[in-house]
Amino acid sequence: MPVAVEFWFDFASTYSYVAAMRVEEEAGRRGLTVSWHPFLLGPIFTERLGLRDSPFNAQPIRGRYMWRDLERLCLRYKLPWKQPSVFPRSSTLAARLATVAVDQPWGSQLVRRIFTANFAEDRDIADRAVLSELLRELGQEPGPLFARAEAGEARARLRDQTGEAMSRDVFGAPNFFVAGELFFGQDRLTEALDAAAT
Amino acid sequence: MPVAVEFWFDFASTYSYVAAMRVEEEAGRRGLTVSWHPFLLGPIFTERLGLRDSPFNAQPIRGRYMWRDLERLCLRYKLPWKQPSVFPRSSTLAARLATVAVDQPWGSQLVRRIFTANFAEDRDIADRAVLSELLRELGQEPGPLFARAEAGEARARLRDQTGEAMSRDVFGAPNFFVAGELFFGQDRLTEALDAAAT
Repeated sequence: MPVAVEFWFDFASTYSYVAAMRVEEEAGRRGLTVSWHPFLLGPIFTERLGLRDSPFNAQPIRGRYMWRDLERLCLRYKLPWKQPSVFPRSSTLAARLATVAVDQPWGSQLVRRIFTANFAEDRDIADRAVLSELLRELGQEPGPLFARAEAGEARARLRDQTGEAMSRDVFGAPNFFVAGELFFGQDRLTEALDAAAT
Repeated sequence: MPVAVEFWFDFASTYSYVAAMRVEEEAGRRGLTVSWHPFLLGPIFTERLGLRDSPFNAQPIRGRYMWRDLERLCLRYKLPWKQPSVFPRSSTLAARLATVAVDQPWGSQLVRRIFTANFAEDRDIADRAVLSELLRELGQEPGPLFARAEAGEARARLRDQTGEAMSRDVFGAPNFFVAGELFFGQDRLTEALDAAAT
């Protein structure tokens, strides 16, 4: 069995975008697989860090740098990029959908497609119509998937994942877990995969 | 003339340690030189970010991760490491000394030596006796250097550097500047040097 690196992400998170686009390909090169864990950073910011908004909004000096940094990272990794007009976007509906999708063979494709909608096309990923269009692009019928994503089971699963992240001392996004150990940030992708490969 | 990458650091900063140990060697490999800019992060935290302590102390969940991350980075880059018993240590005296030393041929050696005293030997870099010992190791007589480091000119120069960092929207440490552009964090060492080399 190939080792699975756990990738924990929030669709609202800029650095999660870069990591989400890279992780499967980079893992594949090392003979590793990825397990995808959508979660919500909002409750963690509120409950664990006492924050009411993204630090990139609360501290504009950090925000301005982050946007320039993202632009440079996307250039470096050849990823499409367009600064979203709304930040952070509500990621709850997209995360519920991903909670259902990650068990499907097209799950990681959908995750990447939702991220590019937010960070390369400036589209509102909280809008059901937008998410429906993305599903149809992948040949999936939105109706039944939304029904499952909004049912109690998927909601509970997302809440559980967020609680699990909290109990593992997650304080941001994205995160990699390798043998229970936390690697925080897109900048630790290489270190996490190297740790998993040894 | 080889291009000089500006390296802005605070001796109290953990990630500055890792970057300070790596930057000259990595720059040299690309035919670049390093210009060393000690500054004080404290006034920037207070005046620009409204912080009264290191975020790693104010948010223990981030602090615990940072210490583990540092240990891993030091292992990765083969750097000596010992978690300091006091954090952050006052870096003002060391920074004044570095302000005088960076114009000397042994300046970068002293910078690295002060960092290893703090982060690999758990020594108090605010203690004049400790700094004197480090200077003597490098064959330098402490007396005249401290006289210069504590004179008005060096104090003013350090204040000016800190003010310059503030005016360039620095919000943490370490930083690299390439053609006026900010690259924040030890994690951007490669990106900054690549930008300077092109």
